[in-house]
Amino acid sequence: MPVSEFYAGEPPLKYSFMDDYSEGAHPQILDSLLRNNRTQQTSYGKDDFCEQARKSIRQHLGCSESEVSIHFVPSGTSANLISISSCLRPFEAVIAVDSGHIVSKEAGAIEATGHKIIQVPAVNGKMTPETLEKGFRQNQFAPHMAKPRLVYISNASEIGTVYTKSELCQISETCRKLGLLLFMDGARIGAALSSHKNDMAWRDIVDFTDIFWIGGTKLGALLGEAIVIKNTQIAQDFIYHLKQHGALLAKGRVIGIQFLELFGSNLFLELGSHANAMALRISTLLTELGFMLSAETETNQVFVKLPLALVDHLQSRFHFYIWEETGDGHAVVRFVTSWATEAMQVDKLNAYIKQGLVLM
Amino acid sequence: MPVSEFYAGEPPLKYSFMDDYSEGAHPQILDSLLRNNRTQQTSYGKDDFCEQARKSIRQHLGCSESEVSIHFVPSGTSANLISISSCLRPFEAVIAVDSGHIVSKEAGAIEATGHKIIQVPAVNGKMTPETLEKGFRQNQFAPHMAKPRLVYISNASEIGTVYTKSELCQISETCRKLGLLLFMDGARIGAALSSHKNDMAWRDIVDFTDIFWIGGTKLGALLGEAIVIKNTQIAQDFIYHLKQHGALLAKGRVIGIQFLELFGSNLFLELGSHANAMALRISTLLTELGFMLSAETETNQVFVKLPLALVDHLQSRFHFYIWEETGDGHAVVRFVTSWATEAMQVDKLNAYIKQGLVLM
Amino acid sequence: MPVSEFYAGEPPLKYSFMDDYSEGAHPQILDSLLRNNRTQQTSYGKDDFCEQARKSIRQHLGCSESEVSIHFVPSGTSANLISISSCLRPFEAVIAVDSGHIVSKEAGAIEATGHKIIQVPAVNGKMTPETLEKGFRQNQFAPHMAKPRLVYISNASEIGTVYTKSELCQISETCRKLGLLLFMDGARIGAALSSHKNDMAWRDIVDFTDIFWIGGTKLGALLGEAIVIKNTQIAQDFIYHLKQHGALLAKGRVIGIQFLELFGSNLFLELGSHANAMALRISTLLTELGFMLSAETETNQVFVKLPLALVDHLQSRFHFYIWEETGDGHAVVRFVTSWATEAMQVDKLNAYIKQGLVLM
Amino acid sequence: MPVSEFYAGEPPLKYSFMDDYSEGAHPQILDSLLRNNRTQQTSYGKDDFCEQARKSIRQHLGCSESEVSIHFVPSGTSANLISISSCLRPFEAVIAVDSGHIVSKEAGAIEATGHKIIQVPAVNGKMTPETLEKGFRQNQFAPHMAKPRLVYISNASEIGTVYTKSELCQISETCRKLGLLLFMDGARIGAALSSHKNDMAWRDIVDFTDIFWIGGTKLGALLGEAIVIKNTQIAQDFIYHLKQHGALLAKGRVIGIQFLELFGSNLFLELGSHANAMALRISTLLTELGFMLSAETETNQVFVKLPLALVDHLQSRFHFYIWEETGDGHAVVRFVTSWATEAMQVDKLNAYIKQGLVLM
Repeated sequence: MPVSEFYAGEPPLKYSFMDDYSEGAHPQILDSLLRNNRTQQTSYGKDDFCEQARKSIRQHLGCSESEVSIHFVPSGTSANLISISSCLRPFEAVIAVDSGHIVSKEAGAIEATGHKIIQVPAVNGKMTPETLEKGFRQNQFAPHMAKPRLVYISNASEIGTVYTKSELCQISETCRKLGLLLFMDGARIGAALSSHKNDMAWRDIVDFTDIFWIGGTKLGALLGEAIVIKNTQIAQDFIYHLKQHGALLAKGRVIGIQFLELFGSNLFLELGSHANAMALRISTLLTELGFMLSAETETNQVFVKLPLALVDHLQSRFHFYIWEETGDGHAVVRFVTSWATEAMQVDKLNAYIKQGLVLM
Repeated sequence: MPVSEFYAGEPPLKYSFMDDYSEGAHPQILDSLLRNNRTQQTSYGKDDFCEQARKSIRQHLGCSESEVSIHFVPSGTSANLISISSCLRPFEAVIAVDSGHIVSKEAGAIEATGHKIIQVPAVNGKMTPETLEKGFRQNQFAPHMAKPRLVYISNASEIGTVYTKSELCQISETCRKLGLLLFMDGARIGAALSSHKNDMAWRDIVDFTDIFWIGGTKLGALLGEAIVIKNTQIAQDFIYHLKQHGALLAKGRVIGIQFLELFGSNLFLELGSHANAMALRISTLLTELGFMLSAETETNQVFVKLPLALVDHLQSRFHFYIWEETGDGHAVVRFVTSWATEAMQVDKLNAYIKQGLVLM
Repeated sequence: MPVSEFYAGEPPLKYSFMDDYSEGAHPQILDSLLRNNRTQQTSYGKDDFCEQARKSIRQHLGCSESEVSIHFVPSGTSANLISISSCLRPFEAVIAVDSGHIVSKEAGAIEATGHKIIQVPAVNGKMTPETLEKGFRQNQFAPHMAKPRLVYISNASEIGTVYTKSELCQISETCRKLGLLLFMDGARIGAALSSHKNDMAWRDIVDFTDIFWIGGTKLGALLGEAIVIKNTQIAQDFIYHLKQHGALLAKGRVIGIQFLELFGSNLFLELGSHANAMALRISTLLTELGFMLSAETETNQVFVKLPLALVDHLQSRFHFYIWEETGDGHAVVRFVTSWATEAMQVDKLNAYIKQGLVLM
Repeated sequence: MPVSEFYAGEPPLKYSFMDDYSEGAHPQILDSLLRNNRTQQTSYGKDDFCEQARKSIRQHLGCSESEVSIHFVPSGTSANLISISSCLRPFEAVIAVDSGHIVSKEAGAIEATGHKIIQVPAVNGKMTPETLEKGFRQNQFAPHMAKPRLVYISNASEIGTVYTKSELCQISETCRKLGLLLFMDGARIGAALSSHKNDMAWRDIVDFTDIFWIGGTKLGALLGEAIVIKNTQIAQDFIYHLKQHGALLAKGRVIGIQFLELFGSNLFLELGSHANAMALRISTLLTELGFMLSAETETNQVFVKLPLALVDHLQSRFHFYIWEETGDGHAVVRFVTSWATEAMQVDKLNAYIKQGLVLM
């Protein structure tokens, strides 16, 4: 018996709504890894699976091979730091909202590549044309200020909100007007594009940005993100960036197989829809009960202000993140759902919330 | 039917001895990934599997928890660049042999972290106390020369040779004498420690080095390497380095599960023994036939000088790497075997070699 | 006749209050450069002048040789980027106020060394213990947030305000409590310590900080700043940092001679007093005339909100910086005085201000 | 009396042939600094002196303003690290000879900007088309090897040899053929172009390279080098690189005035001729006496193998550098002459050499 056998059957003591990467991969992915395990393949991303996955992704994007190049990396941090540093000369800076993921959740990974992040205020978690243009104008004192060159946004945003087509279009136009490139962090792009608030197709993302990435880690893969590059100058020699940052896996097939499963059918957005539906079921109850959401539940994250007594009650059975202690006997907490979230557990959580209210 | 189904049964037209990462993972690993797929786990390397894998590795090393800390990263390049840069202040340099992997196969990844590599001549692919000390002495013109601080070696070396206990001991003592840290790249440490030339135990590696890593990618894992840190100053806050370089996977379990399978039993070195035995079978035939090996076959790589006509003949049925065109109607070629190499294919290769000679 | 002769006698069309580096050096400095020109000296900062200058600075600081080490660099940007990067491991960050010089006036030089700047709100241009501690607390989510390790302040601040002894003492204590190092940018430390608001001696700066620098460029030197390091760990091998960043001049004497003149007597602070007095003469008139200062004139910079018509009037005869267009028919402008500012020109400016009011 | 007065009249106990930066600046330069000291000027390299110096340099180069842009930096290390890093994307490498200045005398400054140096063997201190092309060919294994993009040469070379027009032309053509940029380190370009071996004009340097710099520090200036950029893509936004690396002096005039003096007449090459003549006088005697030069004396450096007894004798009266202990009772020593070297001291050195021989 393998030594790890004992893990298999253990029931978790508490169910976790901590994040969307608590489980392994969608079964179809593991199945494919198993089925294709013995075939010999070329290394470093030139295998048949990566090639096929790129084709499938391009079909979803509505792009020809010459329109976009696609590269796979193992983590979101890799995707962000490589994408950003590949767009910038040493003295150029990226503009992001102050709540942006790269501002405070990447351990200084962007700065470690030598680049400044210019912060502008977020509006509902998002960049607006106005804040963008103002940030740009305030950083034009050459050569004393790092030169703004790239705009970073994430969809969904750090608080789970999504960009509408009109919003993204305006940011894109502002970028072109100001001579800026536009980059979208898509760690949760699957949740964003399957949001009830979304009115964009994949093709719109291609049209409005210069480079973006599709997050696999947070939507069904064991690991892996796909960077999609439209700008041909950025695309040139891009693979060197991957290699230099340790993001080019010898067995590229590991990520290729996963994206082939996710994009060989509609699986990817179906998983997003499930995650979003689970979150909505929680937030719907919470608003019915009169609790205040910190941000509208547009994707798979619920941010809500709850009384500390209720938080304690829920923590006895569930894991979730205390986002902010508000100091008034309440806290903002975050519930995250995923492709793997079981509806039964959502129902249990909702039941516990209602039960907790009775007890209070 | 999943879109990738069609791959499953395809026979390869040519069998590949190109490298040791052409296949997926050892079946026991995939089995464990599948079996443990649904259990919810803490993210970023704090899951039960990583913890258990660390314990298993420590048992093999003969180390207590307080003696070494262990971190998992997705690739060898990550392992090298993070290990090296975590040991050095900005102006400090690493000494390596001129044929070392970090000198010419990492796309400048070490320099990209800001550090110079001081090159010294390799002797049979390896560092010696004499070349090390000479390199150190020649780089003492402060502050005009980057300050030597770390020594990089790999075991097995870039040409597949291994360090004996006595050799490693002497390098270690030279390092201590000169105030240098010692780092071992273990991309193929499994092959090295299961070599017929090896006289070291895992514990010796711990005793003689300050930091080293154990390569999973080239010995049965889908991906993943384990960095082992003895030096407490280097170990402090090490996880930030991982995060900042994009090497801290959200689903740390993916690597934890794999190392737990490899080190939960003797599987890891058993796989190394198989790979080495396959290589020896090839080189034994080649030397019997009178061909000149470029380096003794001490692990899973065979370097041999062959006539171009024979190379052509073999290329019709096998993939392998042309290491160097020697310009005299010959070429040095490299055959690499792995945990997955089929004995039958080795026999076929050997038969083809003999057949080729008859035809020439 | 040398080709540049024709420059010598030209009267400037407009007198400049643009900055404190519009002229050359204090005559005593040029005299010493001339007098000592032919003596042969050891290179790279080991010359007699640098040694003597270090002694003189230490006397002013009230420090023995073993207490602080002193290094000379050619520019303020060099001083900031070298000081900061020498204090930090790759994943560590520096905390600064959002109006801090390194945040937006160094072309991303700090980030180019790989380090994040964590921004906290400025209070009257300065850091406070409260904003510092809050910024520290909000960046403790390891390893996702760059680890706070160093605090950057400047004295005088970016808007010309100075730290009192009590204020600096509290920041220093907060740093020690939180395990942070404290660094002071002293580009205008001469103006700060000769401010009427100042209650600190040089020794206090040594006692309260771990590393700081004394700006020569903005107070009478052709170029050059002196980095003073109390922390012995930072001081170790510091000269390598200088060399690696191109800040170690072959003819170190050039800066040594200048600091020897500035610190061989009380010249340095005397020059600061003059600059401050000139600024105060301007701001005193402006406040008498009822104009609103944007910041109290504590050193050699006057920030004042003026009607655009008056600004136009003054621009016909003087150079100065439009700090901010306020959009209400006014602008905040900055007048900077220096060691070289002629009292007669200040009087002219004041006369023009009064004349301008009459004309409006 | 200024505190530094006592230095002025001291005779040096030993005369130094250690380097070409032991004295201050050419008197004409100090005179101009003094004469132009009070005129107010725009900061950061936009002053009249810098503008005029650029014009004078362009006249010597035979270039129009649109052909080359010129920037001033304080040190040779700055010039090298900024020039090189401005030419390269993150994964690109520079090729240099193994004895090149950037390989071992810049404290890792090039690598600190993130770039690998690919080393090729030097031939008489210089790059050849053959070694260049071979180095290029051996680094084409994409993406595992950093991509060669720039060639670094220095004229004069690290051992004082110079490139002929034919040699430079061939290297330039090889670069163009291989898609490489060519960069010349001109720390001693004045000595090179005034060498009796030189057959190039300034214009040839412009024609054959993409970017080069003219060293002031080692030929009469207090400090300062002029970077000349022909390649328009590199030139774009170049000033940001200066600022970000701390190489943009607030009082840009300090370097502008110096280059205006050096290039406003033929002073620069006249100083080079003097330095070279002084060196030749030493090496002529040494060869007459039968000593072996390690490299032909083509510029202002003499490398010669001398018996240790003679070395000791000379060290009692002169400073010079022991280049290499050869272990056979001899040492290679280096005598460096400069614009400031006194003929009388050269004669004394020569007399001491002859006297030493008699005593031995």
